[in-house]
Amino acid sequence: MSVSVQRTRAFIAACESGDIDRICALVAPDIFYHNIPMQPVNGLAAFRAGFATFLAMSDRIVWDTPLIAEAGNGAVLTERVDTFYLKNGKTLSVRVMGTFEFDAQGLLTKWRDYFDMAEFTSQMG
Amino acid sequence: MSVSVQRTRAFIAACESGDIDRICALVAPDIFYHNIPMQPVNGLAAFRAGFATFLAMSDRIVWDTPLIAEAGNGAVLTERVDTFYLKNGKTLSVRVMGTFEFDAQGLLTKWRDYFDMAEFTSQMG
Repeated sequence: MSVSVQRTRAFIAACESGDIDRICALVAPDIFYHNIPMQPVNGLAAFRAGFATFLAMSDRIVWDTPLIAEAGNGAVLTERVDTFYLKNGKTLSVRVMGTFEFDAQGLLTKWRDYFDMAEFTSQMG
Repeated sequence: MSVSVQRTRAFIAACESGDIDRICALVAPDIFYHNIPMQPVNGLAAFRAGFATFLAMSDRIVWDTPLIAEAGNGAVLTERVDTFYLKNGKTLSVRVMGTFEFDAQGLLTKWRDYFDMAEFTSQMG
């Protein structure tokens, strides 16, 4: 497994832990985070605030990642199913592909996730 | 470039040509084609009919593919911007990630594309 794939797996595991400190320790100060159907988020402070609020809705998080591959430039492409077991008793499961890019220190600098917004919102109900 | 990446590049080039015969020559009889926000399409006859209708709306098609990578099982993951210069004068541009899988004969057996349906429909107007 390449270093970039290892970093991506570690980042996904951190997301599944729901621990925002563990997650942010893997993220660069200049993170560019873009859920493609939404406005992008720039910088660690904004990332932390938004992502912490989102994660706090769940009791348990499972991101199944059957396919993961590193492109020539070190970017890592994933195909996933992200499942959130929400505190309100609902389960939210979204089919996603996403790209992860890291800086020389191994921190996440760019993250783009592609999914259908309606699949997300219809389950948030 | 791996054989599977070469096959994916050739398939994308065929799609850009808009030539449904050239495209279908690269596709397996049991193709499973899934635009994730829509119902999947099974089999070459249904694929050909639906895809030909879709392509026929465009004068010119450009699928920019800055990132492409092969996973351990031979599946190829792509990050793309698919642009369609429509015959009605509009331009349709959709941000997409997609996975391509091939059989032993090198034909496309599985294709899954992830995008936001609203981004597509809002440009179709």
